[in-house]
Amino acid sequence: MFTSHPIGFVSSPYQNASEVPKGLGAKHEADGVLKILPEFEPGLTDIEGFSHLFVIWEFDRSPREQLRGDDLLASPPSDNRQHGVFATRSPRRPNAIGLTVVELLRRDGVALHVRGVDMLDGTAVLDIKPYLSSIPTERLRRGWLAEAEARHRG
Amino acid sequence: MFTSHPIGFVSSPYQNASEVPKGLGAKHEADGVLKILPEFEPGLTDIEGFSHLFVIWEFDRSPREQLRGDDLLASPPSDNRQHGVFATRSPRRPNAIGLTVVELLRRDGVALHVRGVDMLDGTAVLDIKPYLSSIPTERLRRGWLAEAEARHRG
Repeated sequence: MFTSHPIGFVSSPYQNASEVPKGLGAKHEADGVLKILPEFEPGLTDIEGFSHLFVIWEFDRSPREQLRGDDLLASPPSDNRQHGVFATRSPRRPNAIGLTVVELLRRDGVALHVRGVDMLDGTAVLDIKPYLSSIPTERLRRGWLAEAEARHRG
Repeated sequence: MFTSHPIGFVSSPYQNASEVPKGLGAKHEADGVLKILPEFEPGLTDIEGFSHLFVIWEFDRSPREQLRGDDLLASPPSDNRQHGVFATRSPRRPNAIGLTVVELLRRDGVALHVRGVDMLDGTAVLDIKPYLSSIPTERLRRGWLAEAEARHRG
């Protein structure tokens, strides 16, 4: 068990969750900045060599609640059926942890200019890790999401 | 800020960090089980449709310490040079959060049988998310790691 503490904050165009593109075909191409706190700057050494980063962040606008039973089902914007929270990206989850892959456009000191933010402005960043490899698309199965897309295309 | 709590625990073949494959060319193909706590089982609904999952977990065998300055540089097993911790997968990081992509082989109730574990046996799982899409390999740059690989091939 550990208590999270921010290593920085996201500067994003989104002030409210309703502004973040969601649902089938939603694209995350918004530019933003990860502003890392000065005391963590040495941890950014050589990060500019990576094209993509995992950003681990905190759903700090979601209420803290003990989720049990049906609270662990989520109704994603991409489907009219409920699915288990661990099969979705719902913000309402037992640990309020978000994960986003961003493209690193450039680094300017403690400011990482990135593309692909889907976090709200001011979101606390907990960790950044280099994105090292991809699962080949032909090996991916995407369960209910692929089914919802197929129904949508009709 | 939030305090993490486990949603389950990893059953892995690795008892000690020294047993986990590391360094250039290391493959993570070990089979393991994510044993989710019974109270979170509804959150697994429909997860079996996904071939790959992000597992967010806790480096619970790493000491809790305030990392500042040079402590934020890591010496990865794949290179003889130091890099910022956010440009590495080092276990010694400001928030003790690990991230692993696993292949979901099958679900048996609260047991997710997966391939690709690199966590120690008994590691606390904090979150599971579906892996939905990949960055095309031809768009990835991998900085110091690609350079270390090139030097290694010599």
